[in-house]
Amino acid sequence: MSNIAVATIAFDYFSHGLASGEWHDFFKMLTEDFSFSFPVAPFQGHNVGQDKAKQFFNYVSQQVFTTGLFLTVERITSNENTVVFEVKSQGLMFDKPYTNQAAISFDVRGDRICGYREYLSVIYIKDAD
Amino acid sequence: MSNIAVATIAFDYFSHGLASGEWHDFFKMLTEDFSFSFPVAPFQGHNVGQDKAKQFFNYVSQQVFTTGLFLTVERITSNENTVVFEVKSQGLMFDKPYTNQAAISFDVRGDRICGYREYLSVIYIKDAD
Repeated sequence: MSNIAVATIAFDYFSHGLASGEWHDFFKMLTEDFSFSFPVAPFQGHNVGQDKAKQFFNYVSQQVFTTGLFLTVERITSNENTVVFEVKSQGLMFDKPYTNQAAISFDVRGDRICGYREYLSVIYIKDAD
Repeated sequence: MSNIAVATIAFDYFSHGLASGEWHDFFKMLTEDFSFSFPVAPFQGHNVGQDKAKQFFNYVSQQVFTTGLFLTVERITSNENTVVFEVKSQGLMFDKPYTNQAAISFDVRGDRICGYREYLSVIYIKDAD
């Protein structure tokens, strides 16, 4: 399976996790030594290991985007190891209307994801109407 | 010339601009309708046109990174229209030690750059020692 195919499957599970809070399928695709970088506290910076990843993604769903965050893919770029998804996101963050753009970079090893980096674009919370 | 080749030349000029404040070569590679997105005020959001771009990049060099910002490319991904550079950056921001990671996405049209999006990773200013 090509790295784009692996990354696309993982991204679909990732997107499903953000929308629904169900992360099981995504977690199954992570390598043991999976590491990730994220811009915002309490997981700001570089984090290593599946346990940390589970804490992070469950935190995102249970505390930040409790009604789901919904991604639209705008662009996909790749090389032999990495696939980058540029996305728009929309939902409620801490119960307030939220929209953003992000670059989400997956490193692929075999049929799994060994690295994830998220970069954020327009960082703001829209005021409620 | 391949889109990666065009984007790499533009990125070298971009990197030189950030390091030195000399943006002339980069500006020459922008299409008339060049547009860009940036995460942070006063140019937060989507900006259109070469004049806006010149204001932005000159602002960055003259007011934010007056002694230069220095990029190290970590990863390059691409598709037929777009090339994404994942980078580390280091320098002084408003005279304080600064380091970050970013995804910089260039859209290529012919031998020019028609779009640029910047996404930021770890957003922080290191305290001076």
